[in-house]
Amino acid sequence: MDSKVERLLINYKTLEEFKKFKEYGLQELSMLDDLQENIIENDSYSPFYGIYFGDKLVARMSLYERKAKYNHYFEIQEDFLELWKLEVLPDYQHKGYGQQLVEFAKGFGIPIKTNPRVKSQLFWDKMGFEAAVYDVERDLGENPLLWHPNGLTKS
Amino acid sequence: MDSKVERLLINYKTLEEFKKFKEYGLQELSMLDDLQENIIENDSYSPFYGIYFGDKLVARMSLYERKAKYNHYFEIQEDFLELWKLEVLPDYQHKGYGQQLVEFAKGFGIPIKTNPRVKSQLFWDKMGFEAAVYDVERDLGENPLLWHPNGLTKS
Repeated sequence: MDSKVERLLINYKTLEEFKKFKEYGLQELSMLDDLQENIIENDSYSPFYGIYFGDKLVARMSLYERKAKYNHYFEIQEDFLELWKLEVLPDYQHKGYGQQLVEFAKGFGIPIKTNPRVKSQLFWDKMGFEAAVYDVERDLGENPLLWHPNGLTKS
Repeated sequence: MDSKVERLLINYKTLEEFKKFKEYGLQELSMLDDLQENIIENDSYSPFYGIYFGDKLVARMSLYERKAKYNHYFEIQEDFLELWKLEVLPDYQHKGYGQQLVEFAKGFGIPIKTNPRVKSQLFWDKMGFEAAVYDVERDLGENPLLWHPNGLTKS
């Protein structure tokens, strides 16, 4: 597989590509607004990483580094990554793009928390993520899944 | 419509009914565990409210009262409700059950925050909910929608 993961830049082309993804929401609209109002520069870094097939964006995820003080998930309070909006366009699924993105995130070498979409359980199992012990005050409607570079100690 | 909204009790029957809903996750599994391990009593209150059609649960939502200190959404910091897992079983949709549940939540008379599922925008518009101004640090992958008993002042 020749595909490579790249950090996505905020520009009109990227934002147009984003419209093909199901999880298009306020985050994307907000980037578009900021661009139109010159609050952010064209080609500034977004929190998204993606894989292009030719000049078409076919897979993406959003990654955000959170400070240790927001870490209510792991035994040791350290900085961690919040991963969301992992999505591969329908015609490009089952080719390893999702896996490639998650492996890329793991490459940062710090713990990862994600809140998976319904029916993606098998994928996250395969990627070595484990369900957090559910805590209604912390999690509400989330089903947090966790991965730690040194393996998880369940708290 | 004779249907009425009731607070759901945690027992094996409720948890069996929950399996029919798409958004079945750690929250439900955790309640089942707690019941099996006698950590919670049979028939204790759950954070869920629902509507029965005969003896079948056909619609539900989870509601949680959050303290003002978690309120990063409204101009005035006051207690608010977090609403999630609003779902009507497919054969019972478009009969007003979703609306009835949301009206019930509004009846508490305090602000409500929810994070809608994809493609439910029209429903929430109709219910008077408005999109929060997106803030990546606060919202990450969420698209918070807000409702306030006295109308919203956008912050």
